[in-house]
Amino acid sequence: MNEFALIAEILEALAETTAGPGVRVGPGDDASVTSVEADAELISSIDALVADVHFPAAAGAELIGYRALMVSLSDLAAMGARPGLALVALTLSELDVGWVRELARGMARAARDAGVPIVGGNIARGPLTITVSVHGWSPRGTALLRSGAQPGDQIYLTGSLGGAAAALARGDLGACTDAGGLDALQRRYFLPQPRLVAGMALRGVASSAIDVSDGLLQDLAHVCAASAVAAEIHSAQIPVTAGAELSHALSGGDDYELCFTSARVPGDIGVAVTRIGSIVAGSGISLDGRPVSAAGYQHFQ
Amino acid sequence: MNEFALIAEILEALAETTAGPGVRVGPGDDASVTSVEADAELISSIDALVADVHFPAAAGAELIGYRALMVSLSDLAAMGARPGLALVALTLSELDVGWVRELARGMARAARDAGVPIVGGNIARGPLTITVSVHGWSPRGTALLRSGAQPGDQIYLTGSLGGAAAALARGDLGACTDAGGLDALQRRYFLPQPRLVAGMALRGVASSAIDVSDGLLQDLAHVCAASAVAAEIHSAQIPVTAGAELSHALSGGDDYELCFTSARVPGDIGVAVTRIGSIVAGSGISLDGRPVSAAGYQHFQ
Repeated sequence: MNEFALIAEILEALAETTAGPGVRVGPGDDASVTSVEADAELISSIDALVADVHFPAAAGAELIGYRALMVSLSDLAAMGARPGLALVALTLSELDVGWVRELARGMARAARDAGVPIVGGNIARGPLTITVSVHGWSPRGTALLRSGAQPGDQIYLTGSLGGAAAALARGDLGACTDAGGLDALQRRYFLPQPRLVAGMALRGVASSAIDVSDGLLQDLAHVCAASAVAAEIHSAQIPVTAGAELSHALSGGDDYELCFTSARVPGDIGVAVTRIGSIVAGSGISLDGRPVSAAGYQHFQ
Repeated sequence: MNEFALIAEILEALAETTAGPGVRVGPGDDASVTSVEADAELISSIDALVADVHFPAAAGAELIGYRALMVSLSDLAAMGARPGLALVALTLSELDVGWVRELARGMARAARDAGVPIVGGNIARGPLTITVSVHGWSPRGTALLRSGAQPGDQIYLTGSLGGAAAALARGDLGACTDAGGLDALQRRYFLPQPRLVAGMALRGVASSAIDVSDGLLQDLAHVCAASAVAAEIHSAQIPVTAGAELSHALSGGDDYELCFTSARVPGDIGVAVTRIGSIVAGSGISLDGRPVSAAGYQHFQ
């Protein structure tokens, strides 16, 4: 089988997710052609997921594919953008057609759940890596940035944290084969639900936002640095996923909830929201009144 | 050094290329925010370049970086799109700050030459791979597709072919360290010039277009398949780069010229254009009157 036959298999597995009302030309040309949302800005992000660094390569390919697209879409959620399109570059060391088909099926499932077409991609021989580029739309000037937090704002979190890190710490993710067999913590890792609806609902409400991918302390530290403010948070207020520990919620990553700041109490954004602290003048983060370092995951530490 | 310090080094090397009139938010947030061209469609492509598969890892990093961005932009040229923005995902197995800085300098040089901002990226530990996602704009309905060739159209080529393949065949690319020391064939490999201006000039003129990345026969075969037509080309008419052989021009890749079809003789598109044959009814390609297979580069053959 050559690369073109493999691409045909992938396209069959992606099925109708490569098309959509905004897609004029999907996979198969030199580039995709998609329509543009009126009076919007383009929001763009890219993420590379490396086998056994960012996902357990031994796990089921459908789980890996689902997670890869959702993790990337989380960056659009953090900006309050409506997903528009995704591109996927896949490098593979060996040609396991069945595995690739399952990966594409997982991506297709995520594309359906998130309502985003997969309009193009690239396949090449190389160490197993999945790189996803996602693009969306936000009405001009409404994108949620990291840099808008102000002293006096309150700090909020969607959902709960720590579940994915607890599953990682347990060390059994590589044995997971399909969505049906996952327990609650494994679901938090393999089936993240990017807060896309919440992000869009937070336009004009949140003064800043970030998705919690590397750990609450580290990601909140990015907001503080970008906004030139400090954060005071309280461990008793942090919503910890059942089965996880506070340390997982503070320093573990992979939950893909949104952490945002606002001067007013947010209304219904379609997901549970918890206030975890306040923005104050200064720099850095204090937890329960004591300064803490942002001990999240760093790729080259 | 952690990943954030490394990112700071990269951003310093990218310098002003991360900004521009259309860039509201560049690197450093969850995603970039860029302005949208009025009445345009979004043209998007992604390419992964794997060390020692798609480039010689031993070569100078500035050359590798320059080539990586230009090769990706060639897909926009093939669509007739104006470049809008680029994103880069870099996976690195070891942390050689000097190498990464040179890579970023090469990308910055290409970004300047092509007039495209690098608005975001991702860095992670993994086998050396450079994945570039490029996006551009084309007035609604004007993008050049592979599927528009018609019997009676003539087949044209920009520039000349075979130089990059001849350099690859010589086997000395890994010893190249910087742009100043390259000979003419090495320049064809490391300093490709995507035909962006020509592509835009071909809007409304070309009935189909593709960039020659995998070899003329293979890429022209894609046009024939997408357009449901056949091509008749003549070896004596194919412009072969000085120092290369006809086989390099026919089956070697990496030149990134445009091959396009048109019912009328194209005017000045800013680069030399040669007529190499005609589109006829049928399927496949004939060279000098005999059918040929599309023996270009296939990644998994």
